[in-house]
Amino acid sequence: MDELVSLCKRRGFIFQNSEIYGGLQGIYDYGPLGVELKNNLKSAWWRTMVYERDDVEGLDAALITNSKVLHYSGHEDTFTDPLIDCRQCKSRWRADHLENAKCPSCGSDDLTDPRPFNMMFKTVVGPVEDGSSYAYLRPETAQGTFTNFKNVMDCTSRRLPFGIAQMGKAFRNEITPRNFIFRVREMEQMELEFFVQPGEDEAWHKRWLAERLDWWVAQGVSRDRLSVYDVPANELAHYSKRTYDLMYAFPHGVEELEGIANRTDFDLGSHTKNQDELGLTAQVMANPESNARLAVQDPDTKAWVVPYVIEPAAGVERGVLAILNEAYKVEELENGSKRTVLGLKPHLAPLKVAVLPLKRNHEGIVAKARSIKKDLQALGLGRILYEHTGNIGKGYRRHDEVGTPLCVTVDFQTIEEDDTVTVRDRDSMQQQRVAVAELGDFVTDYIK
Amino acid sequence: MDELVSLCKRRGFIFQNSEIYGGLQGIYDYGPLGVELKNNLKSAWWRTMVYERDDVEGLDAALITNSKVLHYSGHEDTFTDPLIDCRQCKSRWRADHLENAKCPSCGSDDLTDPRPFNMMFKTVVGPVEDGSSYAYLRPETAQGTFTNFKNVMDCTSRRLPFGIAQMGKAFRNEITPRNFIFRVREMEQMELEFFVQPGEDEAWHKRWLAERLDWWVAQGVSRDRLSVYDVPANELAHYSKRTYDLMYAFPHGVEELEGIANRTDFDLGSHTKNQDELGLTAQVMANPESNARLAVQDPDTKAWVVPYVIEPAAGVERGVLAILNEAYKVEELENGSKRTVLGLKPHLAPLKVAVLPLKRNHEGIVAKARSIKKDLQALGLGRILYEHTGNIGKGYRRHDEVGTPLCVTVDFQTIEEDDTVTVRDRDSMQQQRVAVAELGDFVTDYIK
Repeated sequence: MDELVSLCKRRGFIFQNSEIYGGLQGIYDYGPLGVELKNNLKSAWWRTMVYERDDVEGLDAALITNSKVLHYSGHEDTFTDPLIDCRQCKSRWRADHLENAKCPSCGSDDLTDPRPFNMMFKTVVGPVEDGSSYAYLRPETAQGTFTNFKNVMDCTSRRLPFGIAQMGKAFRNEITPRNFIFRVREMEQMELEFFVQPGEDEAWHKRWLAERLDWWVAQGVSRDRLSVYDVPANELAHYSKRTYDLMYAFPHGVEELEGIANRTDFDLGSHTKNQDELGLTAQVMANPESNARLAVQDPDTKAWVVPYVIEPAAGVERGVLAILNEAYKVEELENGSKRTVLGLKPHLAPLKVAVLPLKRNHEGIVAKARSIKKDLQALGLGRILYEHTGNIGKGYRRHDEVGTPLCVTVDFQTIEEDDTVTVRDRDSMQQQRVAVAELGDFVTDYIK
Repeated sequence: MDELVSLCKRRGFIFQNSEIYGGLQGIYDYGPLGVELKNNLKSAWWRTMVYERDDVEGLDAALITNSKVLHYSGHEDTFTDPLIDCRQCKSRWRADHLENAKCPSCGSDDLTDPRPFNMMFKTVVGPVEDGSSYAYLRPETAQGTFTNFKNVMDCTSRRLPFGIAQMGKAFRNEITPRNFIFRVREMEQMELEFFVQPGEDEAWHKRWLAERLDWWVAQGVSRDRLSVYDVPANELAHYSKRTYDLMYAFPHGVEELEGIANRTDFDLGSHTKNQDELGLTAQVMANPESNARLAVQDPDTKAWVVPYVIEPAAGVERGVLAILNEAYKVEELENGSKRTVLGLKPHLAPLKVAVLPLKRNHEGIVAKARSIKKDLQALGLGRILYEHTGNIGKGYRRHDEVGTPLCVTVDFQTIEEDDTVTVRDRDSMQQQRVAVAELGDFVTDYIK
């Protein structure tokens, strides 16, 4: 883990937020390569969930959330962690993160009993400060999906089963953030809410479990570091009938990468009007404030049905951490030296190709390299880097370390002889000459 | 504007946030088509700013921001709007939004004098509630760029001039949000901080003004609705030496679409240590808390120089509004009927192609249409929609209204005769038969 954290900072993947002022715990910034890796992972999810299916719509709801939404969702009451105070040094700890009955900070055993601490960030909206106008930063993207259920139905004429996908920031005021980007206060989620007929929920739940396992494997997560935890009844969230946690063997231990929950009719039932008429199976809070019926009408019987929800919900940061962990390798080479390589899948690599002129001061070589960069960039495969360092061997090693699949070197042979370039492969370290005229197809085949 | 707002809701572009609970003022959600349009605009910006240039790096900093950052940036002191209270009905108003000396709510003239109201959203980070641990939601992406200046320099070895681009959410607690998505409390920004040698700032400022005008025109914003406002000295922000505002003739009036500011050495100077040694030209607050030198060393003289910053900063929502306004047309057709069409540039259209089977219940046609959708989707051009409505004519009109450039209809001729489809063009309404084997190239040429 330490090597990974160091690489992430040194090579521009992930920085501690506001480091120049001592940092802000549990909050991270993504550097030039991190932003590309994260966006590539999100794009892969959106492609699989929205573009390649015919039964899912996309959505992007706001982060600042009406307190009523999080009242009726149950978050105001139940989105808590157990908090323990040290009476000696006044520090505060998450009860289940204390390894013994002593304060990790001062060693005192004068600790309070655990009490619930709400993990939502609160803020005031508008210029009135009398407490009437507070709102929360959303603790999950899901609630914005449920409150827009009718809007999406109305504009798309969807019928069950169908899903609404959303990616974006969510916030949890963790008492003790830790393990690098694993447990953070500001995160990104990729959540699908898949709405099904009651009775078809268990079959869909199993199907989504299988789909999600396959997806993570396609992102380069090895199947044998993934496991499925069938969450026992006494550990289930208040809304869940059954939850499969996809567990991953992170460097710091086996922990959740994605949760796939059967949320029953709890959510739509919580936010709907006329709850009494809808035959809900979930226990929900009485809701006199919603103005919308969040249900679908059976085309034959005309009866109103509140769909069940299957929710595959993944963390972007946890995904990034798992993928970096899988990709990170230190290889011993034949000549006895070592190389660090990030064996990222090409579609996730922050840089797809690095174009390197052999001489940084040779006009013809530089112009040719820039023109090749421009042509490759126009293919729309992601970021292509033009980089004139002058030392090609070092360039290859630097790009191994950040996972760039291909390096293209422009040299005198290119401009004086046969219009070919050297293409060097990250994984095999093999080099081959490719005609510039064929480079676009070569790169496209490799990256796609 | 009313027609546009209505279309946006009806067709799934933009919804009022938490509408089922009466809404949250100044906060909007993006529906199935809105999320694609917004992401397409952001991608176009990132492509132009990061991918197609060789002198810009990307970044994605956190939204929750250390209060020290916004102290030294000057936002705690100066990021305010003038607020007026009505003593009669207790409502609050932004002073410059009052059209006369009467309360717009109750009509009383018993109003307070204006006083400054800080527009940043505040929240508490961590479980300590004694006020020591508050933070802000960032009011602009820029500060996360400045505080990461050294991190980016260290991991990329950039030299001046170079830029750091960032897109993402920013928050302003507007007193009176209004004009649909124009003045909102939660927004997205696209900001480039371009670092230059002092002395070269004015030339770069002019160059960026020209580049940004061209870019908006390439997004479909007509040049004659754009104008440049050379902000007079007495209206400049505290950090600015000179600012060009790109003004757009919105439906509600001529207002700012993007600001291009010469921020001098104010920002890096504000956040750097050893300010006295750096020969700053800007007036900055003394900073005993930063631990980093935000300056570059001249390779020849070895002198430390704090770069000047040119900042083109655009609002995503304002861009979306301008683009929708440009694209929205109601055309009178030859037969006397009308059609609504969104003439969006193909790269911005939420749906690139709609694939429509002539018969929704004909197995062969449906299977062929699904297979064509899948093949077109794999081209990576954006979202391709498979839609079986059965009524092709209505389908064309519905897709005109949301700006889908091409509709592909699969019919009996396709599967029984010659493996061609009807391709119908949104703008010309012309239809032509295209061989399925050539459809990929046809669509790629059209969209790119």
